[in-house]
Amino acid sequence: MNDVLKRLVIGRALRSDKLGETLLPKRIALPVFASDALSSVAYAPDEIFLTLSIAGLAAYSFSWKIGLIVVLVMLTVVASYRQNVHAYPSGGGDYEVATVNLGPRFGLTVAAALLVDYVLTVAVSISSGVQNAASAIPAVEGHEAVVAVGLVLLLMAINLRGVKESGAAFAIPTYGFMFAIIGMTVFGLYRYAFGHLPDVESAQFSIAPTSEFSQGFTGLAAGFLLLRTFSSGCAALTGVEAISNGVPAFKKPKSKNAATTLLLMGTVAVTMLMGIITLGNVTGLRFAEFPAEQLLRGGVPVGDGYTQHTVISQLAAAVYSDVRPLFYVTVAFTGVILVLAANTAFNGFPVLGSILAKDGYLPRQLHTRGDRLAYSNGIVLLAGFAIVLIVAYDAKVTQLIQLYIVGVFISFTLSQIGMVRHWTRLLRTEKDPAARGRMGRSRVINGFGLVMTGVVLVIVLITKFTRGAYIALIAMAVLFVLMQGIRRHYDRVRAELEPEDVNPPLPSRNHAIVLVSKVHAPTLRALAYAKATRPHDLTALTVAVDAEDARALQDEWDARGLDVPLTIIASPYREITAPVLEHVRDYHRSSPRDVITVFIPEYVVGRWWEQLLHNQSALRLKGRLLFEPGVIVASVPYQLRSSDRRRGDDDPTSSPGAFRRLAP
Amino acid sequence: MNDVLKRLVIGRALRSDKLGETLLPKRIALPVFASDALSSVAYAPDEIFLTLSIAGLAAYSFSWKIGLIVVLVMLTVVASYRQNVHAYPSGGGDYEVATVNLGPRFGLTVAAALLVDYVLTVAVSISSGVQNAASAIPAVEGHEAVVAVGLVLLLMAINLRGVKESGAAFAIPTYGFMFAIIGMTVFGLYRYAFGHLPDVESAQFSIAPTSEFSQGFTGLAAGFLLLRTFSSGCAALTGVEAISNGVPAFKKPKSKNAATTLLLMGTVAVTMLMGIITLGNVTGLRFAEFPAEQLLRGGVPVGDGYTQHTVISQLAAAVYSDVRPLFYVTVAFTGVILVLAANTAFNGFPVLGSILAKDGYLPRQLHTRGDRLAYSNGIVLLAGFAIVLIVAYDAKVTQLIQLYIVGVFISFTLSQIGMVRHWTRLLRTEKDPAARGRMGRSRVINGFGLVMTGVVLVIVLITKFTRGAYIALIAMAVLFVLMQGIRRHYDRVRAELEPEDVNPPLPSRNHAIVLVSKVHAPTLRALAYAKATRPHDLTALTVAVDAEDARALQDEWDARGLDVPLTIIASPYREITAPVLEHVRDYHRSSPRDVITVFIPEYVVGRWWEQLLHNQSALRLKGRLLFEPGVIVASVPYQLRSSDRRRGDDDPTSSPGAFRRLAP
Repeated sequence: MNDVLKRLVIGRALRSDKLGETLLPKRIALPVFASDALSSVAYAPDEIFLTLSIAGLAAYSFSWKIGLIVVLVMLTVVASYRQNVHAYPSGGGDYEVATVNLGPRFGLTVAAALLVDYVLTVAVSISSGVQNAASAIPAVEGHEAVVAVGLVLLLMAINLRGVKESGAAFAIPTYGFMFAIIGMTVFGLYRYAFGHLPDVESAQFSIAPTSEFSQGFTGLAAGFLLLRTFSSGCAALTGVEAISNGVPAFKKPKSKNAATTLLLMGTVAVTMLMGIITLGNVTGLRFAEFPAEQLLRGGVPVGDGYTQHTVISQLAAAVYSDVRPLFYVTVAFTGVILVLAANTAFNGFPVLGSILAKDGYLPRQLHTRGDRLAYSNGIVLLAGFAIVLIVAYDAKVTQLIQLYIVGVFISFTLSQIGMVRHWTRLLRTEKDPAARGRMGRSRVINGFGLVMTGVVLVIVLITKFTRGAYIALIAMAVLFVLMQGIRRHYDRVRAELEPEDVNPPLPSRNHAIVLVSKVHAPTLRALAYAKATRPHDLTALTVAVDAEDARALQDEWDARGLDVPLTIIASPYREITAPVLEHVRDYHRSSPRDVITVFIPEYVVGRWWEQLLHNQSALRLKGRLLFEPGVIVASVPYQLRSSDRRRGDDDPTSSPGAFRRLAP
Repeated sequence: MNDVLKRLVIGRALRSDKLGETLLPKRIALPVFASDALSSVAYAPDEIFLTLSIAGLAAYSFSWKIGLIVVLVMLTVVASYRQNVHAYPSGGGDYEVATVNLGPRFGLTVAAALLVDYVLTVAVSISSGVQNAASAIPAVEGHEAVVAVGLVLLLMAINLRGVKESGAAFAIPTYGFMFAIIGMTVFGLYRYAFGHLPDVESAQFSIAPTSEFSQGFTGLAAGFLLLRTFSSGCAALTGVEAISNGVPAFKKPKSKNAATTLLLMGTVAVTMLMGIITLGNVTGLRFAEFPAEQLLRGGVPVGDGYTQHTVISQLAAAVYSDVRPLFYVTVAFTGVILVLAANTAFNGFPVLGSILAKDGYLPRQLHTRGDRLAYSNGIVLLAGFAIVLIVAYDAKVTQLIQLYIVGVFISFTLSQIGMVRHWTRLLRTEKDPAARGRMGRSRVINGFGLVMTGVVLVIVLITKFTRGAYIALIAMAVLFVLMQGIRRHYDRVRAELEPEDVNPPLPSRNHAIVLVSKVHAPTLRALAYAKATRPHDLTALTVAVDAEDARALQDEWDARGLDVPLTIIASPYREITAPVLEHVRDYHRSSPRDVITVFIPEYVVGRWWEQLLHNQSALRLKGRLLFEPGVIVASVPYQLRSSDRRRGDDDPTSSPGAFRRLAP
């Protein structure tokens, strides 16, 4: 049943050698890895206008200036990361750059920041997508969190099926979104140039500045608000690092293809961002955080009756005032791209998780590829955390976005420091002037990137800390400590497992003990098998829970003429495990250099309800004996007829040719 | 933590040899085993008056006649059971009598009936007790089911502590109840004789007969109603069989003490029953099933505003109209005895369950004595079923009581048939005239008992079947089929386990396979141990989930100069279990007379979260290998330092002198 369901959801298992086929050409890699960065233009302009609204309409004239600074930062970051993908093509991305150049503690910091940000990418993008859908589909309204959780589960299922199929599935919406936004901008500016572009619906409102700005948009407060606006606008930069973490998924030449895709993505993203800001300015857009109180119609707040549509939907309604179907196309692509943007994280998180698991910072299970060759455990984990966030914040984008970005800029900044050190180190030994020239140029680019991202990080920390960023920072700190603890555990285990001697001294003797409860076929088989291992000595052991039963057993033992001595130990508290453990320990104390093999006869039944009808003391006893030094715990199974049912379950011969021997 | 809680609730573990001390003297056995039978006078008279009310006040004159017939049945049953406890003192009770004399199918029928009735005893008594409490304590009203469930859990805990303590705890309330009811009767009749006894509060009402009896109390309908009333009154007989099932818990001479206790109980019960019915008649009591509609004040129904108190509380209020504190004492003892009556079932159910488990009709775990020497699993099971009933019927006595009695009379009747056959069989061989006389007398008593209980069973079936008894019958049928199925399973397993040959042919050779994932200390220890068992041949086996890892392993294997050949098997689907199984099966197919020992190196960690950090593939593999014939699964544990924490957990040396060796 369970298995059938699994096959339906994720498809049949793939052989390991199919792995090579899941590499991506540029035209597919762009939608897979860039949907996050591109989709953020669906909420970054909203955040810019929304934050400026606090100071009233007076501040709106700064919107395009802030947009230009964001574009400058974006282009700088893209230029910097083009250096990264060439220097570190293995997919470790920022984590690898920081680890190699700054040491494992900085690497771990970057990793923690990125893991938290991946989760937030899913939560923010899905929530934003659902809120867009809600403004078009009334049925979704009020159930945003439920729909968002459903979409996360859908993405999880798609990704468990494997990366390639998801790439193909995401190409159309991503390209569709790009053409929709750029097309809207071009057509809007064309109409504006000829004076035919109508205002947006919100142009009729004025905006009430908060009391802080009642004296006008001046002073320190104004400066701080501009910084905050800039911070929010920087949401447009999230997702740029996705490509540098995803280099191994590219077709060869990997680095070159990744760098080209990165540049393409940056160009498209800034074009779309500036297009939307420009359109907003020429159509008289007003966009507020609390529209009911902030937006005024004739000096009076509009109240709860007014539903504020997203920026893109308002612009599309104005630009396509005569071609209504194109409005729907634009909004639909926006909603879909936002949901699909979360897929970037589903590509990045599991890969980073598997690298961290390989390095011993996360449980090993994250490094295991599932039936479809995806890192299934990482995918499930990401979906789980994202669902927790969505439920906790009830899928509210404006609240979730406060936790966002800080992690991205921590990783940007540390990565750029690392890159500067990287080039400096290379320059120390490089003699070839041409190569030195290239390296020097790269170092300048990364140095500029460092300054830029460092400044943005400080601005983000100052303006967002108390508004939610502290939660993200706490999550990163917890992850950091956890990952260090896991690594320490694995290190300790590895050290303990390190053999002192390749050929340890052989145990002098092997004492065999066969546990007996009744004289039946499993017991006799266990005795025969124990004899076949030719131990130094062999005894049968029984625990006398009931004195009468024990006497009966001794009598039958003697009557059957069994040639193995039977030891009976008392158990006044009717326990099985403790007396056996004590007996074995006595043995071990008296001859610590010997090995004791405890044979446990077990009969095996096939049905779950049959298991209930038999005491499970053998299982408990086996578990406890594992903690005794110098002991081998040997189960001698006796298969009852019903056990055949279970044996077929994973008969490997049912998948013909699946298993062949490699070496003798 | 868990262990501390367990010790607090049920006390420290008791040694098996403390078992003798939990036997009961008569003065304690009476309250322990008779509280059920005695307490039923708290609801049996209510049911008699309530059922007669259907025909209006005209039918009330039959109440004492019906009471007398119930007394006659009660005395007959007591006399019959005095024969049972002498003939079958082992505590098998009706189950043993029916099995021995009528065969296992009838024995099983009795067992199913009794098990169902024990559960109903708990549900009915506790519910009735809580409803009594509710009429005195307003806070309980509306939360009857919750309080009842709490009380069941309390009784469970008390019984898990062991039978003797519960006996002592129940003596005072039971004797208190006996004196309270008999004292009330004596004082009430004394006041009546001198004309000072006031009417009860409900004497002011008249009762509206249902439409069926609007023409008066005549015809077939009247006869049927009298039979139904009688059926309900027979609730007073429930619990009589408890003593015959509890003989082994009596002090010696067990049978004689049990028979005396039985007689004592019967006398007290009928005295109380007739006392209450008489008082009800002389104080003008009216008691209806639906008081709001049936009770009329001046020809008008009293409506929901009137709260009908239980019969005992109405009588006590009238009898003690001048001595109010004694009213409270009487009602309090009634409430408490009803709750404690359930304890009878907590003594009977686990013992019967353990006998059935010993006979293979129920899972063996029911035959295991817990830490305090009680049959813990049976106690927990009884509490669980009773809670289900209480929740399902919302602790409503009048509905639960319809399911009751039918099981008791099935077991009464079959038991009496069995006893008649018992005496007939004995008489066939007995020569001594004195003994023959005693046996003949016993046979007459049991024969009379058979006729009486048989007639009552038919009456109960006719009058109660559609009103709920069918549910109890279905439950019995399900139990019957289930127990037969379990027995068949155990029989089949026992037949399969029967050795064909006491000294089966020794396996010709022992092939050892050591599973290897890395070259570390656990692997080397497993290799050394495997060598110490001197197998016919020894190979190391690894599954190549990752081709690179496998190559690295082979290189290290060669580099270290290990003298055991390493076999590498491919696993294109990244599985561990299936390829190993297939390899082992190949081995077994090629030499089926040999035994294969699969050594699994396991490192053992002590903390639960450490377990999470290591793949659990060894556990799964061990579980699957058990289904393979000809295989020994040998775990070679390697204890990491943290495992010491767990080893101390059940160090038997911490209870000094607990374990001594019995035989060499």
